[in-house]
Amino acid sequence: MKKIINNPADCVPEMVDGLVRTYPQIVEQISDTEAVVRSDKASMKGKVGIVSGGGSGHEPTHAGFVGKGMLSAAVCGQIFTSPTPDQIYEAIKASNSGAGVFMVVKNYSGDVMNFDMAKDMAEMDDIKVKSIVVDDDIAVENSLYTQGRRGVAGTIFMHKILGYYAQNGASLDEIDKIAHVVLPNIKTIAVALSAATVPEVGRPGFELAEDEIEFGVGIHSEPGYRREKIQPSRALAAELLEKLDEKLSLNKEKKYAMLVNGMGATPLMEQYIFSHDVLDLLNEKGIVPVFSKVGNFMTSLDMAGISLTLFELKDDKWLEALNAPAETIAWQKG
Amino acid sequence: MKKIINNPADCVPEMVDGLVRTYPQIVEQISDTEAVVRSDKASMKGKVGIVSGGGSGHEPTHAGFVGKGMLSAAVCGQIFTSPTPDQIYEAIKASNSGAGVFMVVKNYSGDVMNFDMAKDMAEMDDIKVKSIVVDDDIAVENSLYTQGRRGVAGTIFMHKILGYYAQNGASLDEIDKIAHVVLPNIKTIAVALSAATVPEVGRPGFELAEDEIEFGVGIHSEPGYRREKIQPSRALAAELLEKLDEKLSLNKEKKYAMLVNGMGATPLMEQYIFSHDVLDLLNEKGIVPVFSKVGNFMTSLDMAGISLTLFELKDDKWLEALNAPAETIAWQKG
Repeated sequence: MKKIINNPADCVPEMVDGLVRTYPQIVEQISDTEAVVRSDKASMKGKVGIVSGGGSGHEPTHAGFVGKGMLSAAVCGQIFTSPTPDQIYEAIKASNSGAGVFMVVKNYSGDVMNFDMAKDMAEMDDIKVKSIVVDDDIAVENSLYTQGRRGVAGTIFMHKILGYYAQNGASLDEIDKIAHVVLPNIKTIAVALSAATVPEVGRPGFELAEDEIEFGVGIHSEPGYRREKIQPSRALAAELLEKLDEKLSLNKEKKYAMLVNGMGATPLMEQYIFSHDVLDLLNEKGIVPVFSKVGNFMTSLDMAGISLTLFELKDDKWLEALNAPAETIAWQKG
Repeated sequence: MKKIINNPADCVPEMVDGLVRTYPQIVEQISDTEAVVRSDKASMKGKVGIVSGGGSGHEPTHAGFVGKGMLSAAVCGQIFTSPTPDQIYEAIKASNSGAGVFMVVKNYSGDVMNFDMAKDMAEMDDIKVKSIVVDDDIAVENSLYTQGRRGVAGTIFMHKILGYYAQNGASLDEIDKIAHVVLPNIKTIAVALSAATVPEVGRPGFELAEDEIEFGVGIHSEPGYRREKIQPSRALAAELLEKLDEKLSLNKEKKYAMLVNGMGATPLMEQYIFSHDVLDLLNEKGIVPVFSKVGNFMTSLDMAGISLTLFELKDDKWLEALNAPAETIAWQKG
């Protein structure tokens, strides 16, 4: 293992420290936690707070999406490990300005349990809390660490949509309703060329041969559904798109947002080549996404690979929400 | 070699196609070239055009920095290969709206020669062209492909500064003057954990042992100045900072911008840990950067490693320029 770190046990606190000191105009650390909250408190006033979080190792998720128009706070657990309820509770308190707090939780058993406990703690303080569990990964029905489907890169779309509505004054009940209407329309699937190496473990989560890939892996090196020889980008795109088509019934009469997401070690050049192939294949169906992004959004440390998310935009307001500005570290203008 | 590509020879055209189709609101392709120009033509009207470019493989550089407030156009050469003069010439033409064009060239012999030839071609068309050759890398005096010092991640600061002045109506002569005043204040140095693999070559540009790093490498796997065993992040930060101190005479009475740049395969977590260490070491000197960014800006395909840029802000206008909004794919709000 060759990494730019100090003591493996210090990775998360040092990372959070580096993040808040690099971008003090956007995020600040919540005292005695590894959670961050929006620096611009004025923009949170009277609005529903949107809180997310999970294990670290997926940067820029989630802290990179804290800022006006997106998340209010994010909790950074240990690497690939759920944050503790007390830390989530602090993020809820820091995000609450009286209108309540909505939590976006990726579907991993530890996250679901700990966010629920934090919600209970907050409710004892009379803070109203609601939540959604994102399960956009269509690869496998159940998985390591997960009952049901995993929550992966599509979570970023959920952050953006809900952050927009919260910023525009939607109530907690309205946000809860929108989240549940939006969720079934976001679907993701990934392919990996290599696994992530957790610093405290020191070796990759699984081994792939030099010419081998795995379809359907999760963001913690969980198994996928098939291993085979590496194929051209276009064949990978076709496989992932076929799986998404099964769930979303792709249709040229509908509108879609696309997210091509690098898993951490995959160069942007490869992501754009893959994006070119996906767009070609969609075009063959008469579909041109009305919104698209390519980049490292939901990574898995140094995993090489890519995920493809499609989001059916059933409501034009959702497109408006995606296009609206967000003053975060990682949601670029593009 | 395991990469998400199709035919290695098609990497650049497919990448450019993927880029412009993903972000049509920001960039469009210049016909019959692998160059891109700002989609928002209105923002270019009457302003000096700012053109950059170079070999591909450094994404998001340079096309990711095309947009209002930054570059007007960018030319994407073959991987690690200078773009041809005719393509640069097309980018100049597409960027000229009568006020002339300023070219930002990284110091590589091929780039310098080809941008110069394009300038000659443009001048025969009565387009006024001036340029700067960026040589911010302090690692080695001469290098493969370079007479003098190499141009690396600090080039992004040059893009942002000049883009700001151009957007605000500075003349070609004024921009030329600013560029040459700014340049000596931007210094960069890198450390690599692994080399890049060019698709058409199929093997890494150099080999490092499993526990070995190399200080001072360039962005095309050019040699650095020393190999040794991997060290903790803090020791790497101290070494790079000491080299920068020799050139910039770091002083707490001065103001600095910092750019921590991932080389492509290095996770953001490691970049933030490194940033934490750099900020600690600067603080020991009484220095807190007034502007900072961390992320993949000037990459080298799948190279693992990091570069550190410091930019002494001798003029408060330069800080204003860095903080001003830019509507590009890759220069985030943060």
